[in-house]
Amino acid sequence: MKYSENSCSDINICYIGGGSQGWAWKLMSDLYLEESLSGTVRLYDIDSKSAETNAIIGNIISGYEEAKGHWTYKSVSTLEEGLSGADFVIISITPGTFKEMFSDVHTPEKYGIYQPVGDTTGPGGIFRALRTIPMYEEIANSIKRYAKDAWAINYTNPMSICVATLYAVFPEIKAFGCCHEVFGAQRLLLMALKEFEGIEETDRHNLNTNVLGINHFTWINEASYKTYDLMPIYDRLVKKYYKDGICDKITDVHFMSKNLVKFDLYRRYGIIAAAGDRHLAEFVPDYARDKKTIAQWGFNLTPVNWRIENKAMLAKLSREYANKEKKVPITASGEEGVRQIKALLGLKDIITNVNLPNHNQMDCDEGIVVETNALFTKNSVRPLTAGKLPDEVNLIMSVHMNNQKAILKAGLEKKKKLAFAAFLNDPLVKNISISNAKALFNEMFSNTRQYLTGFDSIPIR
Amino acid sequence: MKYSENSCSDINICYIGGGSQGWAWKLMSDLYLEESLSGTVRLYDIDSKSAETNAIIGNIISGYEEAKGHWTYKSVSTLEEGLSGADFVIISITPGTFKEMFSDVHTPEKYGIYQPVGDTTGPGGIFRALRTIPMYEEIANSIKRYAKDAWAINYTNPMSICVATLYAVFPEIKAFGCCHEVFGAQRLLLMALKEFEGIEETDRHNLNTNVLGINHFTWINEASYKTYDLMPIYDRLVKKYYKDGICDKITDVHFMSKNLVKFDLYRRYGIIAAAGDRHLAEFVPDYARDKKTIAQWGFNLTPVNWRIENKAMLAKLSREYANKEKKVPITASGEEGVRQIKALLGLKDIITNVNLPNHNQMDCDEGIVVETNALFTKNSVRPLTAGKLPDEVNLIMSVHMNNQKAILKAGLEKKKKLAFAAFLNDPLVKNISISNAKALFNEMFSNTRQYLTGFDSIPIR
Amino acid sequence: MKYSENSCSDINICYIGGGSQGWAWKLMSDLYLEESLSGTVRLYDIDSKSAETNAIIGNIISGYEEAKGHWTYKSVSTLEEGLSGADFVIISITPGTFKEMFSDVHTPEKYGIYQPVGDTTGPGGIFRALRTIPMYEEIANSIKRYAKDAWAINYTNPMSICVATLYAVFPEIKAFGCCHEVFGAQRLLLMALKEFEGIEETDRHNLNTNVLGINHFTWINEASYKTYDLMPIYDRLVKKYYKDGICDKITDVHFMSKNLVKFDLYRRYGIIAAAGDRHLAEFVPDYARDKKTIAQWGFNLTPVNWRIENKAMLAKLSREYANKEKKVPITASGEEGVRQIKALLGLKDIITNVNLPNHNQMDCDEGIVVETNALFTKNSVRPLTAGKLPDEVNLIMSVHMNNQKAILKAGLEKKKKLAFAAFLNDPLVKNISISNAKALFNEMFSNTRQYLTGFDSIPIR
Amino acid sequence: MKYSENSCSDINICYIGGGSQGWAWKLMSDLYLEESLSGTVRLYDIDSKSAETNAIIGNIISGYEEAKGHWTYKSVSTLEEGLSGADFVIISITPGTFKEMFSDVHTPEKYGIYQPVGDTTGPGGIFRALRTIPMYEEIANSIKRYAKDAWAINYTNPMSICVATLYAVFPEIKAFGCCHEVFGAQRLLLMALKEFEGIEETDRHNLNTNVLGINHFTWINEASYKTYDLMPIYDRLVKKYYKDGICDKITDVHFMSKNLVKFDLYRRYGIIAAAGDRHLAEFVPDYARDKKTIAQWGFNLTPVNWRIENKAMLAKLSREYANKEKKVPITASGEEGVRQIKALLGLKDIITNVNLPNHNQMDCDEGIVVETNALFTKNSVRPLTAGKLPDEVNLIMSVHMNNQKAILKAGLEKKKKLAFAAFLNDPLVKNISISNAKALFNEMFSNTRQYLTGFDSIPIR
Ligand SMILES: [Mg+2]
Ligand SMILES: [Mg+2]
Ligand SMILES: [Mg+2]
Ligand SMILES: [Mg+2]
Repeated sequence: MKYSENSCSDINICYIGGGSQGWAWKLMSDLYLEESLSGTVRLYDIDSKSAETNAIIGNIISGYEEAKGHWTYKSVSTLEEGLSGADFVIISITPGTFKEMFSDVHTPEKYGIYQPVGDTTGPGGIFRALRTIPMYEEIANSIKRYAKDAWAINYTNPMSICVATLYAVFPEIKAFGCCHEVFGAQRLLLMALKEFEGIEETDRHNLNTNVLGINHFTWINEASYKTYDLMPIYDRLVKKYYKDGICDKITDVHFMSKNLVKFDLYRRYGIIAAAGDRHLAEFVPDYARDKKTIAQWGFNLTPVNWRIENKAMLAKLSREYANKEKKVPITASGEEGVRQIKALLGLKDIITNVNLPNHNQMDCDEGIVVETNALFTKNSVRPLTAGKLPDEVNLIMSVHMNNQKAILKAGLEKKKKLAFAAFLNDPLVKNISISNAKALFNEMFSNTRQYLTGFDSIPIR
Repeated sequence: MKYSENSCSDINICYIGGGSQGWAWKLMSDLYLEESLSGTVRLYDIDSKSAETNAIIGNIISGYEEAKGHWTYKSVSTLEEGLSGADFVIISITPGTFKEMFSDVHTPEKYGIYQPVGDTTGPGGIFRALRTIPMYEEIANSIKRYAKDAWAINYTNPMSICVATLYAVFPEIKAFGCCHEVFGAQRLLLMALKEFEGIEETDRHNLNTNVLGINHFTWINEASYKTYDLMPIYDRLVKKYYKDGICDKITDVHFMSKNLVKFDLYRRYGIIAAAGDRHLAEFVPDYARDKKTIAQWGFNLTPVNWRIENKAMLAKLSREYANKEKKVPITASGEEGVRQIKALLGLKDIITNVNLPNHNQMDCDEGIVVETNALFTKNSVRPLTAGKLPDEVNLIMSVHMNNQKAILKAGLEKKKKLAFAAFLNDPLVKNISISNAKALFNEMFSNTRQYLTGFDSIPIR
Repeated sequence: MKYSENSCSDINICYIGGGSQGWAWKLMSDLYLEESLSGTVRLYDIDSKSAETNAIIGNIISGYEEAKGHWTYKSVSTLEEGLSGADFVIISITPGTFKEMFSDVHTPEKYGIYQPVGDTTGPGGIFRALRTIPMYEEIANSIKRYAKDAWAINYTNPMSICVATLYAVFPEIKAFGCCHEVFGAQRLLLMALKEFEGIEETDRHNLNTNVLGINHFTWINEASYKTYDLMPIYDRLVKKYYKDGICDKITDVHFMSKNLVKFDLYRRYGIIAAAGDRHLAEFVPDYARDKKTIAQWGFNLTPVNWRIENKAMLAKLSREYANKEKKVPITASGEEGVRQIKALLGLKDIITNVNLPNHNQMDCDEGIVVETNALFTKNSVRPLTAGKLPDEVNLIMSVHMNNQKAILKAGLEKKKKLAFAAFLNDPLVKNISISNAKALFNEMFSNTRQYLTGFDSIPIR
Repeated sequence: MKYSENSCSDINICYIGGGSQGWAWKLMSDLYLEESLSGTVRLYDIDSKSAETNAIIGNIISGYEEAKGHWTYKSVSTLEEGLSGADFVIISITPGTFKEMFSDVHTPEKYGIYQPVGDTTGPGGIFRALRTIPMYEEIANSIKRYAKDAWAINYTNPMSICVATLYAVFPEIKAFGCCHEVFGAQRLLLMALKEFEGIEETDRHNLNTNVLGINHFTWINEASYKTYDLMPIYDRLVKKYYKDGICDKITDVHFMSKNLVKFDLYRRYGIIAAAGDRHLAEFVPDYARDKKTIAQWGFNLTPVNWRIENKAMLAKLSREYANKEKKVPITASGEEGVRQIKALLGLKDIITNVNLPNHNQMDCDEGIVVETNALFTKNSVRPLTAGKLPDEVNLIMSVHMNNQKAILKAGLEKKKKLAFAAFLNDPLVKNISISNAKALFNEMFSNTRQYLTGFDSIPIR
């Protein structure tokens, strides 16, 4: 890497999961738009074909005349090759196949458990976690071996467990996790600012929001904009819209949400839930008790079949981009990755929300992966003390935090009984009978068996 | 109080709730049987009539020729009179009337929630706690004022909240809580010792058992008798009886239990649940999901109507005792109270299980009232470090511990929303819908309104 | 107070110790230079005369044509009058008189103990603390009563004890403490940046420095400027100057320091001590063992007689300013007070170092007043997690942190034996005999007796 | 091992340091006197000759007609041979030779530092710790490998560091440390009981004493005997004897102590220091400032030359015993080892003081090796919660606890600068100049060099 006071070149980024047709393209766009950075992106993927295609696409983009940032993209065939000499590592993988994802999301439905997303908590999140942990153990060991000083940015879900696994295996790792769910709540604050104060601010980075919680169950308990306290302004927003809701801008009907869950949580607890309703309803499943309840709260479930179809569409698009049949459209992704990289290089300090093992940033147990703000400066990510949630929210949060610890331990130490205890303790599993809970666990275990090496095969009885 | 090396006289005991027709008579029996102690018992009760009758009965007992311990019983009409100069305070009250108890136990049944006892946790335990807290605030303030150096022994439920309230109001209080539920598990160990080792030990005090947990959800994770490790012996007991169970000796069919819950919990977690099944099933309501499930697990619910009838029967008995129509039968109660008093006087050290705010005796948050062993010596109760529960049990325990804190705070600070948050967080409430939960909470609140001064009247919406 | 998006008017500031001829004038200058703020400053002082004079001077300054900020200054005669309606409270007092200060600094010299400043730690700091605590109890109670929502900024020493007392009396207070000692270390970093990288940066606010420790014994363990890591650059500075030192710019020879202590501490521990050498040598008195050692390390002691003379000079100047015999010179003070006020009003976010009770910002006991960075935004001061010091420094730091707790408790609860135990535990007292330590303590106690009400009079024997 | 209800046979004890001519003979006596135990003692020593001689002596003793316990003694030549199959491990070694011990005790005297014992704290204790740590790492690893379920009892000093090392290397070890210093304080309590209450109790086990602190700096803050509170009785003892003292029964003038330090500490802090004055004066070196002060406080320093001569005398005695020229005298040692073994076998529960890493038994940091009471039952050592020391004592204790952590880390991780930081932080080193401290450290390091492998050779400058 080469530094000047205001730019850096010869940067090496290793992208694990680099065959992705979503996040990888976003990164390419953001790098294209950023003039102070240049270097090489090495794409690693267990689907090597897709990594190769993405290398072609990346180099096409980088070659556009208008590109501000110039990067070379290459596909690599081993983690060693990708990581050796890396300055930054981006991790964004799909753990397992659609078959396991189908089990995560739809097998619980047979037992009356509905999960809009199914990748974070609940039965789906737990099984996804159990199969992701060994993958992240391998990644952490590889970073330790080949790129111990690199900064690692995780995008994979279940976020908390992924980040926790990295630190469990390699405690000195310089890793953090990023998620854009908080940004949606910040956009609601901008909307309220406009509607009630007439202020047309469009950049959510100009807000101050104190973020705290765990990924996808994150909260904002203080918010301001210049001399304005935003909390009473948000209160007015909720008062106006808690019945009809405000529809999110979405790319597909399966992601629909009217923010009614968010507004109801504000009415219950007096602070701002800062994740999409589809995620929130998995943590507080009062809102997802059955299909009728879900419909009342105005959000949709995302069927895995849609994901399969969408994936096929993206694969086609990918080929068209690579063959130059279509021009790759460039838009800023709205993600924080490139801003964070700049900050870590010393080019511009930022404060943004990240997922990290708790070391005092929140008033909760040490080591739980929490999401709070952190100050990013030259080679440093330093969390702000975010304080504590209201007692009422903490009662719910504690269950999820305790489960996080239990699932991590169950996955690392192959403790099936502990995994089941966490499963039983999950609020989504609370309203089925224990015999159904056992049957569901055993069925999901069997569906995911291939990725759960090391666990015994004896069903929970 | 007067001491010799091996006995004490002129002891002053204040009994709050001294009109009781259960615990008070047990105390009278135990004092009758104990030769090293003598003094005065002052009986205080808001039902002054019953305290007066008990004073008569106490003096009758004490006057029996065979009595080893000689005591004077008096009824007193104020806490000040009862407490001034007291060396020991016994607290055993019924908070509220049968009307509120009926609401505690039976109102939830309308919503499909079954509580065998309803005085500790769950909807019943929570409302009982909320109305007991102000009573215990008064008691704690009175002890602080009139008997600050006295030892206070609590028997009232909800045990944890009662003890926690005493310490919240008067942190220097020398109080602890006693419960006999653990003794039942110890008796099962004696039974196993006989059955599998042929050893006829009848005194549970000769066992070593490490007790830990919270009242009525208490566990034993180490047990020995002389050179015998009792854990594998208990394992054999469970293997033999987990299908048919072992019936507890009971005084009435409504207290029936076959220990099937206890044995199943052992099979799930590998340690001994040390409370009656009827209590355990309120903490792990998998076993009390519906009437059929309850029947399968072999325990009964206790209807409040039975308690009302039983109370009438005892009132009659009380009059007969006082009128000397019937002789008061004397049997050792099996409770620890008098042994504890002796130990605190320096007459015989003991180790026994007690309820105290956690100050390191368990691996859980400071201040939670936990039940563990403690060493009792002259003017000293010193808990043993009891360590920690298995992770699987801790997931369940944490919910109840967090609820304990929340309910205490809600009661002391009159925070209705926090009370409802704890209510919602209780496993017994988990499988009803949130709208039903609100309706149930509001109905129970209304039923108990008279005792819930200071809370606002706005229903939870 | 009135807000617009970019300015605030009608601000009320109460200045306790407003007769000051140092800090008060600095505030006047800084307010004069700041165009986005205006309002009223109420000056309260037990020396009401000096407050009145300062009101005259303040209004003269505010009336200058070139003034960017317009303020009205008034003297007030009670804390109630000063505090009622205040938005900000500045506290900067001299606890006691020069007589007690003389005892603080010079009595220990008779026993071979040398304190360059004598207001923070050591015998002088301890006695100053004991007499300041009741004054701060009064201030905290007054803020609680008259201005509970105001932000309070403390400048008085001993900083840690002053801030700790405010929070002990009124835990919800919005107070923090400010000190400029860290800025000196930051200026050394700017100097190194120029000398070794040729970069002419003059604004220390453009550095990133992670500050941690306690006031006047504060450290920087991470420092960067844009893409530059400053730690290796500071290393070069120390290597070059550790023998000859670098003289601070000073106003008087009694404040002389060559930074040799700072450089030696860097060589010992590998991180940057961020306070003046005269303060540091009181915490690590290896450097102040005797007069010869002090001379070798290149710093001076400040005799109280100099302070008395200086005070007389300032009093004269004050009269000349008030009489308009001399024009008041205006220069930016370099202090953070007005920047902090602006940030708290939402006008411009800053990160700066402040003294606050530890609530996770440092890896040390809860409640210890520590100095770390905090983010200031609209009505919010949120510390960053500063992490922990090297083990070697922690051994020294722990002694001072434990003493801080002990002195606070001794002062609040009038525990003389505990005060003496802290005195004995202070490294400055370690190399005299215990009989001398007792004699010194008793002598200083007697000298300060007038301000130490509530303590018993029995000498430590 | 074979159990019956009331005895155990075929017990295997491995004695590391089994060539000892003090502790080993005490064990032989105690086993001879105990009828419920029998088995084999394997003696391991790096001086294999002395182990062999002790095996002969042990078998002679065991063969005496009057012997109640029958044991076979064998010498073994490797740890593997000694540990394989062991039920108990006794560790009592001399780390290094008299040469290093001479440096520990006498080199500091050249710099004006006097240590009566020199094996626990201070310069001597620190260097002894640094060279003992690698030996204990080897022992811990061997126990982990060959006897992981055995109970290990440590007698070696520095006790805290030895026990801490065992747990650092093998966290699941079942080890504790034993020391008889507390017993001396208990004997003073018996003496007071006789003198002021006329009660002739001779067995200190009948007292209740709450022990807390660290080894050789241990305290008793509660004490009772039957119905008697012993604290006011001890107060009377101190009032009577604090001037003239009470001479300990001693075997040699070099161990003389009048308990004046103990009585003075009681007068300072109101609780009972429970270790010999010679140890206490190393922790609170006010009492050992110089030779005159030491003489005033009535205790003696123990020169290493005396130890060398004594060792020669014991070697001669050893040969005479082995050759049957002299009969081995049998007396109960007064140590707790055999009682503890019996308790761990389930033969008789006891409560006694032991050294263990803190896991809640004291109010201090987790992991510090502390000395408190513990309940010994069948295969279980369970500490009692001992609470906290008075604030005044805690100020001193904290320094030693922090040093314990630092020395352990320095020894395990070969951190010389940290070792020196702990050295500087030791109160015994506080009143010499830093340049002398450096010189002393470097000299002692050089003297002990042979045992300090892994540390760099660069002197502290
Ligand atoms: Mg996400
Ligand atoms: Mg009970
Ligand atoms: Mg300062
Ligand atoms: Mg010892």
